[in-house]
Amino acid sequence: MIMEQLKKEVYEANMFLHEQGLAPFTWGNASGIDREKNLIVIKPSGIEYSKLTPEMMVVVDLEGNVVEGDLKPSSDTPTHIELYKAFPEIGGCVHTHSVVATSFAQAGMIIRAYGTTHADFCYGSVPCTRALTKDETEDEYEKNTGLVIIEHFKNMGFDPNARPCTLVRSHGAFAWGKNAIKAAENAGTLEIVAQMAMNTVLLNPQVKRMDQFLLDKHYLRKHGKNAYYGQK
Amino acid sequence: MIMEQLKKEVYEANMFLHEQGLAPFTWGNASGIDREKNLIVIKPSGIEYSKLTPEMMVVVDLEGNVVEGDLKPSSDTPTHIELYKAFPEIGGCVHTHSVVATSFAQAGMIIRAYGTTHADFCYGSVPCTRALTKDETEDEYEKNTGLVIIEHFKNMGFDPNARPCTLVRSHGAFAWGKNAIKAAENAGTLEIVAQMAMNTVLLNPQVKRMDQFLLDKHYLRKHGKNAYYGQK
Amino acid sequence: MIMEQLKKEVYEANMFLHEQGLAPFTWGNASGIDREKNLIVIKPSGIEYSKLTPEMMVVVDLEGNVVEGDLKPSSDTPTHIELYKAFPEIGGCVHTHSVVATSFAQAGMIIRAYGTTHADFCYGSVPCTRALTKDETEDEYEKNTGLVIIEHFKNMGFDPNARPCTLVRSHGAFAWGKNAIKAAENAGTLEIVAQMAMNTVLLNPQVKRMDQFLLDKHYLRKHGKNAYYGQK
Amino acid sequence: MIMEQLKKEVYEANMFLHEQGLAPFTWGNASGIDREKNLIVIKPSGIEYSKLTPEMMVVVDLEGNVVEGDLKPSSDTPTHIELYKAFPEIGGCVHTHSVVATSFAQAGMIIRAYGTTHADFCYGSVPCTRALTKDETEDEYEKNTGLVIIEHFKNMGFDPNARPCTLVRSHGAFAWGKNAIKAAENAGTLEIVAQMAMNTVLLNPQVKRMDQFLLDKHYLRKHGKNAYYGQK
Repeated sequence: MIMEQLKKEVYEANMFLHEQGLAPFTWGNASGIDREKNLIVIKPSGIEYSKLTPEMMVVVDLEGNVVEGDLKPSSDTPTHIELYKAFPEIGGCVHTHSVVATSFAQAGMIIRAYGTTHADFCYGSVPCTRALTKDETEDEYEKNTGLVIIEHFKNMGFDPNARPCTLVRSHGAFAWGKNAIKAAENAGTLEIVAQMAMNTVLLNPQVKRMDQFLLDKHYLRKHGKNAYYGQK
Repeated sequence: MIMEQLKKEVYEANMFLHEQGLAPFTWGNASGIDREKNLIVIKPSGIEYSKLTPEMMVVVDLEGNVVEGDLKPSSDTPTHIELYKAFPEIGGCVHTHSVVATSFAQAGMIIRAYGTTHADFCYGSVPCTRALTKDETEDEYEKNTGLVIIEHFKNMGFDPNARPCTLVRSHGAFAWGKNAIKAAENAGTLEIVAQMAMNTVLLNPQVKRMDQFLLDKHYLRKHGKNAYYGQK
Repeated sequence: MIMEQLKKEVYEANMFLHEQGLAPFTWGNASGIDREKNLIVIKPSGIEYSKLTPEMMVVVDLEGNVVEGDLKPSSDTPTHIELYKAFPEIGGCVHTHSVVATSFAQAGMIIRAYGTTHADFCYGSVPCTRALTKDETEDEYEKNTGLVIIEHFKNMGFDPNARPCTLVRSHGAFAWGKNAIKAAENAGTLEIVAQMAMNTVLLNPQVKRMDQFLLDKHYLRKHGKNAYYGQK
Repeated sequence: MIMEQLKKEVYEANMFLHEQGLAPFTWGNASGIDREKNLIVIKPSGIEYSKLTPEMMVVVDLEGNVVEGDLKPSSDTPTHIELYKAFPEIGGCVHTHSVVATSFAQAGMIIRAYGTTHADFCYGSVPCTRALTKDETEDEYEKNTGLVIIEHFKNMGFDPNARPCTLVRSHGAFAWGKNAIKAAENAGTLEIVAQMAMNTVLLNPQVKRMDQFLLDKHYLRKHGKNAYYGQK
């Protein structure tokens, strides 16, 4: 068996999604990439979380060919592949239908940065892509989902390392990070931040986003060369 | 004891409803049908979930006569019977008062399809029936509840295999599926989708339902002859 | 030790309140009455639920004198006493600050009957009392809380056996029943019904209460001489 | 090892925050002070709660120097220090990003006293500070967070012993008490009271705060020399 360590990590990221309530039933998937081998490890499609094992994780290459594993990879694999190709610094990727983040995606709304909980993990609003066209939906839908995310980040000038997640219009959430575990944690933070943002706009429909200097302070306190949060 | 396997399945579907918080106290019931014998297995009426066993499940025929079991069947049995008679492809049926789905029923609102979580399990909006009349309520209430559901699906031209659930006005939710477990899972998905829909309209009161081609894509990705989700 | 069985029952009702999340920290109390002895068993004041035992329950008479027990009874004991004196058919009483029911009390709103979940346990809206006056608050506050509930039921012509709970303005919820366990269950049902009602009015601010004949049907299906729900 | 008992207490207060869902991931910290030694015990920065032990707690003096411990103290330590210096009667302090309290902070709203649950723990509205200026944010941010809280209490004439918590604009919640455990419990009560207040204003946007005499009654029933709640 190849990439035993990565399979274990991807398995744990998948279980984290489920245990945190971010992926009820079989909705949601996590993957990780080995950048030297250019191989992705991803959850098999439609298997109950309670039956998953690290050995069931599927290995695919960047063209989507199964390199190892008896099961079909997640139907969202082509989305993961596009994100790994376009965002070279990410090592893990997850997809969820977590309830409140998905509600924003359904409402077609970005999640503005209203406070430091948001600033600690995402340097600006959480984007929401445009809807896919009929053609993009009918043919190579999952691949096009990835391409629409990438197009949006490019058009808006967003840095995927500083905004580790996005909403896809009428669909759900994608999050990424340096590895699968970190990607899953970002999906978890996104859901909490979405709940806070929803409460905030219900309490105060005229609320403005937070001060830019506070956003700078909190994001840079945890990220980049001048970070001073944690033990490093 | 007859139909041991079906009793076990129906028992598990009932416990799923309770464990997922879809049926607090004794509210809610699940049943399954043996289409060859034309016998239904259903939860006994008003028994605490913690005291249920597979052996307690009651066997009734399509006229509602108890064929096996020492306990009275669920008071909603006549509703289940009508649904089994009118929807020949279903093998399981459940009733819940899950909180958000019931809130839509109380508000007299359908649950529109706003995103792919919805599209993955229900091919169009979740219907909400008309209220029962005084006569329908006072006499054969539970049977008439089933008939009003069936009338609504017929009048609207809805396919019960593609919309595996409905709201009943001022009451609660019914869901069905190929067996009792699948019916219970559909009731669980309905509750999550209802929560997302409620959040969506609170965030954006002008929101439109999702694009038809996206609804087609997601529903048909999981259902029917061209499905490609999961391991089959 | 006297009334061992009643102490056990009252202990269990108190633990139910806590385990169901109806009484966080030490907020909330349950009591039961022995109608032959005219003695009430009630939770001691301000003790953490994790440290409660059946033996700690305090026995008081209808004047509030401690008949048995080393601990002070709940500070809300005078409210319970008034309710037992005015409502002769009840055998148990509870007080909670459960989140959504208390929100309605704070908003000064009754909980209208919008659906059958409500109708199954309460025959009409859940009342909300007037606020206590300054005098009623400053002197014999807890006793006056009980008297204001009783006054409201009398003025409105409400039957406490058919409406087993009330909100007290700017305060919280009281529920009762044939014994302490049933009273605690009614407090639990009240919280769920309150959540449904809140969702209902947020989804549809113009919503009307349910049809009277449906309210009759569901209440009388579970209560009174023609009840046919459950195994009795 | 010095101050073993205080470390255990601070450890337990931190775990309480996490177990009650007030501090997901590593967000949140609790500290306690030894007023005789003028030494503070506080959580280390950015350590997962599941890996915390009492021995990991860091001891700092009132200038922020680490007196004992191998780990860096919480990045919020300077906020705690300012609060301990300005509020001489408090013995414990906590910081959380609990969801609903933080939503009020993001909305820039105080939490008005709408009912007795609030009155039982906080004698008046929960304050919300002004936003920090750019200068206050860029230099000595955590210290200035403390100073802005203190300025607000001073300007408004608020007694920190009677209002054991505050919101910091666009950020989150701070709570305090006679020791670390009590401070953590106040943070827990704050979150529940915030949820009730949010529900209350959504249900009734015109709602007024509770009567002053009821606020007096409930606060003074539990606090001060005439308290009669609990066993003391």
